[in-house]
Amino acid sequence: MNVMDYSERRRRLLAELERLKLDAILVTHLPNVRYLTGFTGSAAALLIENKAQAKPAFVTDGRYSAQAREQVRGISIAVGKPGLMAGMIREITARHPRRLGIEADHMTVKTHSLLASELRGSRLVATSGVVEKLRIVKEPAEVKTIRQAVLLGARLLPGALRSLRPGRPEAEVAAHIEYEARRRGAERMSFETIVASGPRSAMPHGIASPAPLPKAGFVVLDYGVILHGYCSDMTRTVHLGRPGPQSKAWYDAVLQAQLAAISAVRPGTAFSDVDRAARMILKGSKLEKFFTHSTGHGVGLEIHEPPRLAAGQEETLEPGMVITIEPGIYVPGRGGIRIEDMVLVTDAGHEVLTPVKKEFVQI
Amino acid sequence: MNVMDYSERRRRLLAELERLKLDAILVTHLPNVRYLTGFTGSAAALLIENKAQAKPAFVTDGRYSAQAREQVRGISIAVGKPGLMAGMIREITARHPRRLGIEADHMTVKTHSLLASELRGSRLVATSGVVEKLRIVKEPAEVKTIRQAVLLGARLLPGALRSLRPGRPEAEVAAHIEYEARRRGAERMSFETIVASGPRSAMPHGIASPAPLPKAGFVVLDYGVILHGYCSDMTRTVHLGRPGPQSKAWYDAVLQAQLAAISAVRPGTAFSDVDRAARMILKGSKLEKFFTHSTGHGVGLEIHEPPRLAAGQEETLEPGMVITIEPGIYVPGRGGIRIEDMVLVTDAGHEVLTPVKKEFVQI
Repeated sequence: MNVMDYSERRRRLLAELERLKLDAILVTHLPNVRYLTGFTGSAAALLIENKAQAKPAFVTDGRYSAQAREQVRGISIAVGKPGLMAGMIREITARHPRRLGIEADHMTVKTHSLLASELRGSRLVATSGVVEKLRIVKEPAEVKTIRQAVLLGARLLPGALRSLRPGRPEAEVAAHIEYEARRRGAERMSFETIVASGPRSAMPHGIASPAPLPKAGFVVLDYGVILHGYCSDMTRTVHLGRPGPQSKAWYDAVLQAQLAAISAVRPGTAFSDVDRAARMILKGSKLEKFFTHSTGHGVGLEIHEPPRLAAGQEETLEPGMVITIEPGIYVPGRGGIRIEDMVLVTDAGHEVLTPVKKEFVQI
Repeated sequence: MNVMDYSERRRRLLAELERLKLDAILVTHLPNVRYLTGFTGSAAALLIENKAQAKPAFVTDGRYSAQAREQVRGISIAVGKPGLMAGMIREITARHPRRLGIEADHMTVKTHSLLASELRGSRLVATSGVVEKLRIVKEPAEVKTIRQAVLLGARLLPGALRSLRPGRPEAEVAAHIEYEARRRGAERMSFETIVASGPRSAMPHGIASPAPLPKAGFVVLDYGVILHGYCSDMTRTVHLGRPGPQSKAWYDAVLQAQLAAISAVRPGTAFSDVDRAARMILKGSKLEKFFTHSTGHGVGLEIHEPPRLAAGQEETLEPGMVITIEPGIYVPGRGGIRIEDMVLVTDAGHEVLTPVKKEFVQI
């Protein structure tokens, strides 16, 4: 595992707290807790005060006390009793921050009510994307880990393609991919594996079903693995049997759209302009109306994280961002095609991380 | 798939709305939406008014419009634009319920703020477990589906045990289980597969790791599958190599505790009394302090749902509840043992659904 500098991340967070005039922030979204501490368990909350010298407070539950002591450094660790939030309320009360940020995108109304009734003298301030903003540009150690995850994912494709044959259930192809992922060290899949064949390939979220692969038609394979907490994500579409001329033309249009979007990736480009680059190509082939989702998203500790490459997103790419580029078209009743790589934004422009060719493949 | 009567479930919900004096409830927790409509996608919200004749409003996003029309009957279906909540706000505004229940255990602070600022004339009322309360007693069609899931899970065990050998990574054993689950029709696993061996078996949540199986020691296998949306959950613990007399004594104590808890399962027994039955046996062997979690939980559309079989839970079992019985002991640095079955509460008492023997197994 590549070493991450958690205390440096917490130091960067202080500038955000200053900007938001917060005395402290309560981090409850687990990927954010992991980003700031290295803790990988499933029950934790973290309190960070806006004071350079203050020790953060970390609370977990009884199942994870040994693991927390092993993983979390430079932070006071408590086991919450009777529960996590009871423990965290004690930690907050002891520090009495006046303006306390909470993560409004993730905290439930119930937890918010509990905090509001138990904490006297702290005002709860709804925040959005504070830690996520730090996570959007990846550090070198993160890029290295992501590369390893992407490589593991890519190496599963040849076996997956060999497993394709008419009549075999989609779910069995997914089972092959997932089995090999595990055997090669993936912690788990980063989302439910998509194997969508024939008319089902027209579903952008066609999770592998018991449906048998057809004699002829597209098969969309979209999957990712998690390695050391970081996600990979890739999609390839291949054709079973002999394609008609329209199928090949559709494939080529999606591929050109994907290449155009990748070409647009460089520091300073607006997220929306990457999306537009793909959409313009499909418009040229009159296929734009079948491209029903955005062009891509950030990937890291979560499979979907900022940025979003879509219309209206006017912020700009920066070196160190890791994104997917994944245009697709979905023609109801006919089929669909999607091609997806992971791409690193570099000082000079971009680097495609997914080392897998993309020309039309007939099986 | 066994046919579920969604309109009857919505009818039962009306009595709850009456009890809580709500004019309507906004259901956003996806397992609850599925329970009330049959919709299996990942983006939906449902509005149910407290009027016998009113049609509920269902909102999804563009990816799921075809699927919603296929799965959701007797309900008006809208595609939310620009997003799900924007669409739902329009539906609520058109009906202007005065007291509108929201699911406080699941709704985020952000969504709550959005609703509070957009809805004029509706007061948002935090509710907890309203639909979950309906789900706690399973209908015959649900029990039938759960039986199928449990059976599928149970049939994976012989292959899993054959795959155990010293030196093989835990994750590879998990990969075997998951591959076979898929091949036999599971939609996916109901939680991250636990394969915890040797000293790792002392971790109640020892997700399969790259660690090699030891020459001698316990191996805890805890996994479940999802079939037609319903979860299974089972745990068996076996011993690699020759056990010492203490290991066998520990195993027997856990098995006796599990059998005692099962014996206590019948209509009218308090949830806490089932837990106590297991704990008393372990107390007799002075192992009680190593039993660090509750005795069981409900299983259905979610892997953990009400009831909780734990101290302080004074409500009572009813026919149709489906629960796990899973006492365990965890001795730090030494190892752990857990034995888990799924059990149906019947009019006469109980039926153990998991058809797998539990005597000590040496491999």
